[in-house]
Amino acid sequence: MSSDDLNKRIAKYLDDHQKDYIQRLSDAVSIPSVSAWPEHRPEVVRMVEWTKSFMETLGITVELADVGEQKLSDGTKLKLPNVILGTYGNDTAKKTVMIYGHLDVQPAQLSDGWDSEPFVLTERDGKLYGRGSTDDKGPVISWLNVIEAYQKLNEPFPVNVKFVLESMEEYGSDGLEDLLKSLKNTFLSGVDYVVISDSYWLGKTKPCLQYGLRGICYFFLDVECSTKDLHSGCFGGTIHEAMTDLIAIMGTLVDNKGHILIDRLYDEVVPLTLEEEELYKPITFDTAAYCSEAGVQSTIQSEKDQILMHRWRYPSLSLHGIQGAFDGCGCKTVIPRHVIGKFSIRIVPNMKISTVEKLVENHVQTIMKERNSPNKVSVKLEHGGDYWIADPNNPQYVAARKATVAVHGIEPDLTREGGSIPITLTFQEQTGKNVLLLPIGASDDGAHSQNEKFDISNYMNGMKVMSVYFQELAKL
Amino acid sequence: MSSDDLNKRIAKYLDDHQKDYIQRLSDAVSIPSVSAWPEHRPEVVRMVEWTKSFMETLGITVELADVGEQKLSDGTKLKLPNVILGTYGNDTAKKTVMIYGHLDVQPAQLSDGWDSEPFVLTERDGKLYGRGSTDDKGPVISWLNVIEAYQKLNEPFPVNVKFVLESMEEYGSDGLEDLLKSLKNTFLSGVDYVVISDSYWLGKTKPCLQYGLRGICYFFLDVECSTKDLHSGCFGGTIHEAMTDLIAIMGTLVDNKGHILIDRLYDEVVPLTLEEEELYKPITFDTAAYCSEAGVQSTIQSEKDQILMHRWRYPSLSLHGIQGAFDGCGCKTVIPRHVIGKFSIRIVPNMKISTVEKLVENHVQTIMKERNSPNKVSVKLEHGGDYWIADPNNPQYVAARKATVAVHGIEPDLTREGGSIPITLTFQEQTGKNVLLLPIGASDDGAHSQNEKFDISNYMNGMKVMSVYFQELAKL
Repeated sequence: MSSDDLNKRIAKYLDDHQKDYIQRLSDAVSIPSVSAWPEHRPEVVRMVEWTKSFMETLGITVELADVGEQKLSDGTKLKLPNVILGTYGNDTAKKTVMIYGHLDVQPAQLSDGWDSEPFVLTERDGKLYGRGSTDDKGPVISWLNVIEAYQKLNEPFPVNVKFVLESMEEYGSDGLEDLLKSLKNTFLSGVDYVVISDSYWLGKTKPCLQYGLRGICYFFLDVECSTKDLHSGCFGGTIHEAMTDLIAIMGTLVDNKGHILIDRLYDEVVPLTLEEEELYKPITFDTAAYCSEAGVQSTIQSEKDQILMHRWRYPSLSLHGIQGAFDGCGCKTVIPRHVIGKFSIRIVPNMKISTVEKLVENHVQTIMKERNSPNKVSVKLEHGGDYWIADPNNPQYVAARKATVAVHGIEPDLTREGGSIPITLTFQEQTGKNVLLLPIGASDDGAHSQNEKFDISNYMNGMKVMSVYFQELAKL
Repeated sequence: MSSDDLNKRIAKYLDDHQKDYIQRLSDAVSIPSVSAWPEHRPEVVRMVEWTKSFMETLGITVELADVGEQKLSDGTKLKLPNVILGTYGNDTAKKTVMIYGHLDVQPAQLSDGWDSEPFVLTERDGKLYGRGSTDDKGPVISWLNVIEAYQKLNEPFPVNVKFVLESMEEYGSDGLEDLLKSLKNTFLSGVDYVVISDSYWLGKTKPCLQYGLRGICYFFLDVECSTKDLHSGCFGGTIHEAMTDLIAIMGTLVDNKGHILIDRLYDEVVPLTLEEEELYKPITFDTAAYCSEAGVQSTIQSEKDQILMHRWRYPSLSLHGIQGAFDGCGCKTVIPRHVIGKFSIRIVPNMKISTVEKLVENHVQTIMKERNSPNKVSVKLEHGGDYWIADPNNPQYVAARKATVAVHGIEPDLTREGGSIPITLTFQEQTGKNVLLLPIGASDDGAHSQNEKFDISNYMNGMKVMSVYFQELAKL
């Protein structure tokens, strides 16, 4: 059978079973697998078991990987949910695709402002409302539905598939990185391509593929002026206040245009080529919708391409807050003794974390030298995470682009994300293979918000894209 | 009897009864009259009753003034302790002195790090340790002990005395200001001099009189960038962050030398005259002890006189903190939507609150115009309190200086305080008379700290100074 004919058969089968897929997603959403709530851990485990059973009915070999314990804030320990490692097919003549997704969800309660019970999947106007519908139960189930469709039609599956399905994603992916490292030469060794199924389109209507993520360098700027908090009436005007030094330093980091003022910080940023610039031109982006979503008056940049570049391919610096200063309501006339300013720099290719760390240290030292203050000042890189970038012309991306054109009749936008998904980099490092972010949900799905939803059309089209994507991979 | 002879008789009587005075203070300290602890309100009331009884045994007419209710944070109401209004003598040929003090104390528990039970007055090395010993039960009882001494010696009292003894001083003096305003034409009308008996020497050994307090203008600088908190990965680099504007503005307020950078802010500060400069020269001040007490490395100014002037007669600006920003431990990659910077300016003669408010508003507007930010920014004077200044050559001050010389054999330093005691200004306004701050405790008494103490020598000498001060007033 030709690829086109197969696509049509699969698409028809999927369309004919829409109700079943909605019911299946409804079953999954009804399990409140909130990873952030320790008392809900049995529900998370139930979700793992539910998924394992479903996979096993499809003939997928499932192994449950123990990733140890979580230490709660009260000191007690709680077993982390097992990670599902699934294997479907081991035909050495076929390519092997590894799919990553997660089964846990963000917390949700009707009283948070939901229009319907969050753990009862509810259809309204072609949308399926419920916690986990789009993040990430809908996408995970979609991949399994596609395997089922091939089986029901007695069609051979085009590739081997491996699954890594975790259940702590919404709470820091505890234990996953170590697990993947330990699997490098076993479970991960035969993988040809990795697809991360846990992101969203740039907009509401046009599909996209994501080929980059920014990294992060999170700094603690520590200033100490005295051995105790002081009264501003008694001491104000005569001592070097920690807050004055801290605010002065924090005020030298970024200008009113979002430009970072740390010397040489942009040196390692890859120059914009004409070729890369061309990638931005076709991207559909609604600046007004972006402002409206964020609830801001306006963006710093006025041109669409510039806005996107400053989200994705240029570094940015945000001032998050101060620990140790007066943060309450009302008036307190305190001179805080010890304050820690928190700021982070989003890093992009080819910025090195070690370079950023050194430049920030130099910057702080230079400012403090000018200030001639006796206070103890230090700056520490508290957390560093690398950027991730893939080649959007890599064969896997081309396969996904073709699949999108086949289903949606339009080229997907080639986009990035401004934030980090650390596990992406881990998968790339441990497999050494190309990683693709293939979103099927829309930007307005409200993944972590009230009234999270998944459009039925995206659910159905997503599966069709997945099917064609598998077939295109088989041709490589 | 000559004044000198009378002084000697009184001094001898006081010295002969030292044990009784320590016992009396011990009785008062044993009542844990903590005004900040609502459940201790009966103890505060008991302290008021104890004092009233003692005063009545001395023939002082006592009226208990009801100052209404306190609204607790849980919404419930609690009766405020009555304010004691005492009247001793009404001889129109004599001057009338009004004495202010308070009967409530700061919280204290042995587990806070006290070396002995805070509510058991404990003598060690000539010092009386206990909560309230120096703040303010010791000083209040001293005035009453002096009256008793004159009575025991059958000496006519040199002046009429009025007392205003409140019991909410450590918790904001709830209700006192309104009470004083209501008493302007009755209880307060015949007063010639006011003495505030609730402050401390500048150092540990040399007495002082205080003739000035700084005022305060406390500002809320409000910046709002969006309708919700944003993720710095998704939005960092493209929007005008509230924190960036806030920190930039806060960074323009004061330089590394403590100099306030708000245009024209120093215009209303009275120029330093040679005469005023002379006042500073004899003052004993131990810079090293000051640094050690605060736990700072060094002061901004190196000269003693300059340090004192910057505490007392120049304005200062302190940055207290930020409400609404990330203030916790760890890393949070938030762009806070709405942040409120808290800072205050200590004001001095002849700065007007209204002028300071206008200059700060202008400053913020000027900076924001330069920044060209779309964010909503406003600055609000949240609280304003005037400075207070008296003439240290006023007859009442001269009387207190003579009394100090007579007892200590040394001229007291003429000093000020950098903080505010708002009730001082209220007394001055409602009586229209000269107000004197007459401290008898030392700077290391630890009024609000663990191991609060009152030196026996200061207790005894304080009473002697009070006695002579009364006699000197009678000569005016």
